[in-house]
Amino acid sequence: MSLAYHVSNGDAAAAFKKPAAVPGRVASVYSEVQKSRLDVTLPLPSVLKSGFKVIEGPASSAAGNPDEIAKLFPNLFGQPSAVMVPSESGGLDAEQKLKIGVVLSGGQAPGGHNVISGIFDYLQQHTKGSTMYGFRGGPAGIMKCKYVELNPEFIYPYRNQGGFDMICSGRDKIETPEQFKQAQETAIKLDLDGLVVIGGDDSNTNACLLAENFRSANLKTKVIGCPKTIDGDLKCKEVPISFGFDTACKIYAEMIGNVMIDARSTGKYYHFVRLMGRAASHITLECALQTHPNITIIGEEVAAKKQTLKNVTDYIVDVICKRAECGYNYGVILIPEGLIDFIPEVQQLIAELNEILAHEIVDEGGQWKGKLTSQSLQLFDFLPEAIQEQLMLERDPHGNVQVAKIETEKMLIQMVETELEKRRQGGTYDGNFKGQSHFFGYEGRCGLPTNFDSTYCYALGYGAGALLHSGKTGLISSVGNLSAPVEEWTVGGTALTSLMDVERRHGKFKPVIKKAMVELEGAPFKKFASVRDEWAFKNCYISPGPIQFIGPAANAVNHTLLLELGAQV
Amino acid sequence: MSLAYHVSNGDAAAAFKKPAAVPGRVASVYSEVQKSRLDVTLPLPSVLKSGFKVIEGPASSAAGNPDEIAKLFPNLFGQPSAVMVPSESGGLDAEQKLKIGVVLSGGQAPGGHNVISGIFDYLQQHTKGSTMYGFRGGPAGIMKCKYVELNPEFIYPYRNQGGFDMICSGRDKIETPEQFKQAQETAIKLDLDGLVVIGGDDSNTNACLLAENFRSANLKTKVIGCPKTIDGDLKCKEVPISFGFDTACKIYAEMIGNVMIDARSTGKYYHFVRLMGRAASHITLECALQTHPNITIIGEEVAAKKQTLKNVTDYIVDVICKRAECGYNYGVILIPEGLIDFIPEVQQLIAELNEILAHEIVDEGGQWKGKLTSQSLQLFDFLPEAIQEQLMLERDPHGNVQVAKIETEKMLIQMVETELEKRRQGGTYDGNFKGQSHFFGYEGRCGLPTNFDSTYCYALGYGAGALLHSGKTGLISSVGNLSAPVEEWTVGGTALTSLMDVERRHGKFKPVIKKAMVELEGAPFKKFASVRDEWAFKNCYISPGPIQFIGPAANAVNHTLLLELGAQV
Repeated sequence: MSLAYHVSNGDAAAAFKKPAAVPGRVASVYSEVQKSRLDVTLPLPSVLKSGFKVIEGPASSAAGNPDEIAKLFPNLFGQPSAVMVPSESGGLDAEQKLKIGVVLSGGQAPGGHNVISGIFDYLQQHTKGSTMYGFRGGPAGIMKCKYVELNPEFIYPYRNQGGFDMICSGRDKIETPEQFKQAQETAIKLDLDGLVVIGGDDSNTNACLLAENFRSANLKTKVIGCPKTIDGDLKCKEVPISFGFDTACKIYAEMIGNVMIDARSTGKYYHFVRLMGRAASHITLECALQTHPNITIIGEEVAAKKQTLKNVTDYIVDVICKRAECGYNYGVILIPEGLIDFIPEVQQLIAELNEILAHEIVDEGGQWKGKLTSQSLQLFDFLPEAIQEQLMLERDPHGNVQVAKIETEKMLIQMVETELEKRRQGGTYDGNFKGQSHFFGYEGRCGLPTNFDSTYCYALGYGAGALLHSGKTGLISSVGNLSAPVEEWTVGGTALTSLMDVERRHGKFKPVIKKAMVELEGAPFKKFASVRDEWAFKNCYISPGPIQFIGPAANAVNHTLLLELGAQV
Repeated sequence: MSLAYHVSNGDAAAAFKKPAAVPGRVASVYSEVQKSRLDVTLPLPSVLKSGFKVIEGPASSAAGNPDEIAKLFPNLFGQPSAVMVPSESGGLDAEQKLKIGVVLSGGQAPGGHNVISGIFDYLQQHTKGSTMYGFRGGPAGIMKCKYVELNPEFIYPYRNQGGFDMICSGRDKIETPEQFKQAQETAIKLDLDGLVVIGGDDSNTNACLLAENFRSANLKTKVIGCPKTIDGDLKCKEVPISFGFDTACKIYAEMIGNVMIDARSTGKYYHFVRLMGRAASHITLECALQTHPNITIIGEEVAAKKQTLKNVTDYIVDVICKRAECGYNYGVILIPEGLIDFIPEVQQLIAELNEILAHEIVDEGGQWKGKLTSQSLQLFDFLPEAIQEQLMLERDPHGNVQVAKIETEKMLIQMVETELEKRRQGGTYDGNFKGQSHFFGYEGRCGLPTNFDSTYCYALGYGAGALLHSGKTGLISSVGNLSAPVEEWTVGGTALTSLMDVERRHGKFKPVIKKAMVELEGAPFKKFASVRDEWAFKNCYISPGPIQFIGPAANAVNHTLLLELGAQV
């Protein structure tokens, strides 16, 4: 295996003029902590350490609408899951030389480099003479056949390191017949035996479509997915957690814990912390379990209770007033990035605004507001001016509000200020309120992976290699029994079709892996709900501190996972 | 020593109704990392471990205007510094029972709790039967005689922990004759032998005034200062660094490093990171040395070169354009919080606006702008609308713009966007620019102190105890030789008057400890200046990762200190 960049599409002269957008890393200039992670030997689950074979479970179905899923995946539907079991003789052909591609898809999550290292090491150790390609820049790299051949020297500086910059990621999808054809051409050109797609729910759906497409075209190329997303919303019984969630939450929790101690020391600020995670509130819930803030808003609960923005504001204000009576004019409040997406009245307002902005002239005098329903008009007028402006201005290319750009934490501070002033006038509040806003997002996506994420990802990748070696396709790499020591972790693959349901879009059924939302009946939320009132009025702050890689604190696992696995936290 | 809260001023019934604003911590609910820090035994400089005595150096002078300082401090001016040296016999009376108070003054900095632990342990080990009081809520606690008596059980949960919440801090000053009288009353009431003031430049000036006042009133109470500020702007030859700087910079650098890897992985964002540190740019410079960003703005350089906002914008835009030619449409840019304070034209504009807003009616039509000088008008019109609004609206109680509230990072993003658009029209730029803004501030003030800050603070406190035991007053605790192993650190005290100069305020000379700004001829800036062009166009990012407490990466010291001490970094 030698290091070389191949760019088959594009202008070679231009490529020469413009250096590669991502120069490889040089470990010699690493920080001490980065260096200290390079040579860490990761434990593997016992089943992967000696001889093993892959056995199959019973036929699978789908998460919903199995008939439609069966039609969409005629070759793959119903296939069983696979699990590695010890085997003296081994079951796999050690003489086989494989050609395997790997691609990173979507947003960064700590541990992606270790998935790649895991696949690579599997191939080195079990299929000597194999070749591994990293497609550059996400799925577009597959379509354009842009790749780098991976070798030990190239991979080394990325071991146990954060980021996706070894081969970079992208958000393109392989969707149209033309795009599937390009992917086939690449698979044929590189003589690929397999492809590992590291991504979230969409990317794994895409991986399954690709597996189906390759099989229907009689290509030998198998496709295996790996569960990636810091948001934690890609999970199921067989895939207990997506990688990156553990590290990202610990990074955010470190910052939240610091801010808490600052709040208590200063005694005069309410810190409103917005946390990444647009669709589901797992990150916010996990950070709450790690740090015990005074107030935590969980989007799924707001939606389930059909709460209005006023309800949310009142809840916050009620706590602030009661705390003021106790002499506490400070606190910490966690807010999920996607909060306003969960509020039915806001969704309604945004839908009406989208419609108006697409078709009407928005006059300075505000005549256009007459087009709003009275409920939406009332809400619009209730919103702070800056948020009104954001709702009117920011549109994505599809004409939709870019909800993630709305600074919900600042909006809530303003709404809380207004309500507190009312209560002050009414004589029911005489405290002091100063809000400080924070958004923790990009800081968590590329941190050095925790020991958990490093090890979990390595096992996911190593297992993906084994699944491809055994000829599996359309599975998502599945490592389980995660509350036990690493030696006892289980390794296998779950039929991607079994995670799927369909959604109707533009009159057609589209397969989707439903995002796993925070379950209000699940153990993590119930634990939180049982203690939040105590957290609100007593100050039970916990400061998790910086992620440690050595020592007694280094191997803690996130609360969400442990609680979901039935452990006491 | 027993644990008890004493509130001598104020309503006891109210105190009962309102629980203490800061309940003591309970170590049993700590995170694993917090727990792991509690029982760490900190190394002490050798000189403090066995018998030592305090010897004096030559008479001191002042940093400037010694005649005026001599008039302001007739009792203290000229006193020598003190240094601990080994002594078989010991020089200090082990039978003496001391009553010592301690106060935290100003903003939080990691390590404050360890200064207190250091004083406490000194007293326990060298003056058995002594009593220690912690004044609550900063200098106001001295004036109101609000304190807690410290004992081992009370102190234990705060050992090596961040925050100031053991006794909390405050920003009051002891300034008026009435306030000095209150302080004297407290000193007499508690029969104080000594007081340790833990604070920044202002607080240490105040400590010296208090020492002078107590001595002139023939009180026995001695006053010793300790150098605290994350900003790093309280330092001199004898006090090589203020505590908290090391930890805060490492916390910010962790986040910056993460964002850098995200930038490189995504390839599409310029991250504009504003860093705390309003007066001096030490934090920004240190974070740059730790992480190698593409662009770093140092306020002191902007001021020295009399740069305009347009100059700063053009510099950033030049780098962005050149990077776009190289195929890089991403990067990381560090900006000190106080940037606009350093820009002469902005200071001028703000002064004019303050004057206009104090005396004129600001009309919607903009007639008021006629009162601006043409240079200021031009600058005002050049600023993004949101910044114009911030400049017009936000005033502190003294009628001044609250510069720290101005989101300089967002302002620069907008100005860069505008300039890039011009260049695109002019055909000199065809890249893509998307700015992301960050402010790292509160997250760094209360983190778990690094091994360096933990150890340094403990030595500062232990040394302060020894200085009081030997009857010293008006000194700042000074621990030196910090690039050597802890055993070889020197311990002593520096005459606070020797750090002082005077400023004329309201027609009177006021003593001040001048803030130590970034020296453009100093080693840290020169190192930075010698490599910044390489950092701008090559991507030399370093990700320091989370602070480690164990292992090879745990004992690194910040670059600024090492470079200033003449070490190679």
